[in-house]
Amino acid sequence: MVGSSGSCENCKQDLEVYCPEIIWILKTFGGYSENIVIDEHFAVLIPNSLPLHGAAPLLCAGITVYSPMMYYGLCKPRQHLGVVGLGGLGRVAVKFAKALGMKVTVISTSPSKKNEAVERLGVDSFLVAMGTMDGIINIVSGPYTLLPLINLLKTNGKLIAVGASTEAPEIPYIPLMMGRKLIGGSTTRGMKETQEMVDFAAKHNIIVDIEVIPMNYMNTAMERLAKGDTKYRFVIDVANTLYSSF
Amino acid sequence: MVGSSGSCENCKQDLEVYCPEIIWILKTFGGYSENIVIDEHFAVLIPNSLPLHGAAPLLCAGITVYSPMMYYGLCKPRQHLGVVGLGGLGRVAVKFAKALGMKVTVISTSPSKKNEAVERLGVDSFLVAMGTMDGIINIVSGPYTLLPLINLLKTNGKLIAVGASTEAPEIPYIPLMMGRKLIGGSTTRGMKETQEMVDFAAKHNIIVDIEVIPMNYMNTAMERLAKGDTKYRFVIDVANTLYSSF
Repeated sequence: MVGSSGSCENCKQDLEVYCPEIIWILKTFGGYSENIVIDEHFAVLIPNSLPLHGAAPLLCAGITVYSPMMYYGLCKPRQHLGVVGLGGLGRVAVKFAKALGMKVTVISTSPSKKNEAVERLGVDSFLVAMGTMDGIINIVSGPYTLLPLINLLKTNGKLIAVGASTEAPEIPYIPLMMGRKLIGGSTTRGMKETQEMVDFAAKHNIIVDIEVIPMNYMNTAMERLAKGDTKYRFVIDVANTLYSSF
Repeated sequence: MVGSSGSCENCKQDLEVYCPEIIWILKTFGGYSENIVIDEHFAVLIPNSLPLHGAAPLLCAGITVYSPMMYYGLCKPRQHLGVVGLGGLGRVAVKFAKALGMKVTVISTSPSKKNEAVERLGVDSFLVAMGTMDGIINIVSGPYTLLPLINLLKTNGKLIAVGASTEAPEIPYIPLMMGRKLIGGSTTRGMKETQEMVDFAAKHNIIVDIEVIPMNYMNTAMERLAKGDTKYRFVIDVANTLYSSF
């Protein structure tokens, strides 16, 4: 985002992303521009200790998982957090949760993800007992039933959806009521919290796993995206000034 | 409830109702007993200013609506609360919300409920604009779509289900995410909060609309319940010492 009213109820609460007059970069010069002029309010300072390419996706993936962890209080040391799905968002969620001192369990239907989770990310477990989690960050909001996830939560547990899906799973009402549990949604956040998230990431050396590509690789990258042939997020080296993995 | 472990994680947080060793009165002498001996921890003091019969259903309906209002922060003056359904629970929710100084809107498919809501309960409106409510207490958790209710909520709005239903409506995921809204569940609560609720009710003269019946009317009352031929909760005058509406 590159502009908002600055005066609506949401802007006043540092929630520019919900401003009815929000201006997306797509409506100006686009996200692939080599140069763009914006109001300083919409610029985020990337601390020197973070590499620009590894930090870039924090402004989407990072704030998407960091914001609900703060808002829903799933950020306290020794709390037990479940992360459903170990794609790009899931990996970032694990990194933030570990930096916060939480116990993290990845819930995934792919056994192949187990090694990565345990060895690279320091996830604590793959097997979980019922009623043991304080919260779950749900990256994969697919059409499956949510009951098994709800059952993993303790009393007052929170299931937070951050993965966009047009599918609408059914709400397991009685288990929600009986455990005073909640299902919450969240997306990216305002500028103030985005800067806080980047500063936290810098302090804890959190960067996103990425594949850096030059501008002239874009068409191939789009084809690979369409085929699902990606493991990490693409970061475009617009000006060819960054290290490239090619 | 008349007993619990007193030592589990839930009991220690004054959430006896979630104790795995909870003892329900149904397993002892039953709710229709003339006399029962219980540990004082499970007794609630009814202040002298509240009539016993009007206060009795507070221990179910009252705590069911009061508890989520406190827990989810839907209890601040000038917040706008929606109440879906104007049955027994709905009327109690309105009374608590008005005593807390909230703006209350009843959402009902029965136009006939409008007069009662506005004239007897002091409800503020029946017609609502989108995106204007801080929270909604949903008494009628039926099989309908939740999207219209979610759309009534402001950013950060909360839809709380307190009406038991085995139906599982679909979750409107994207609207939840885009507005950081949540769907929460809640049921009755521990002894500490139950006493707080009764004290609050006494301070604000909140009683439940009831129909007092003598013990020998029980079979007829059960038949009327089965037919849905009730407007208010039945309170049984077990010892024939209360005012009776007969």
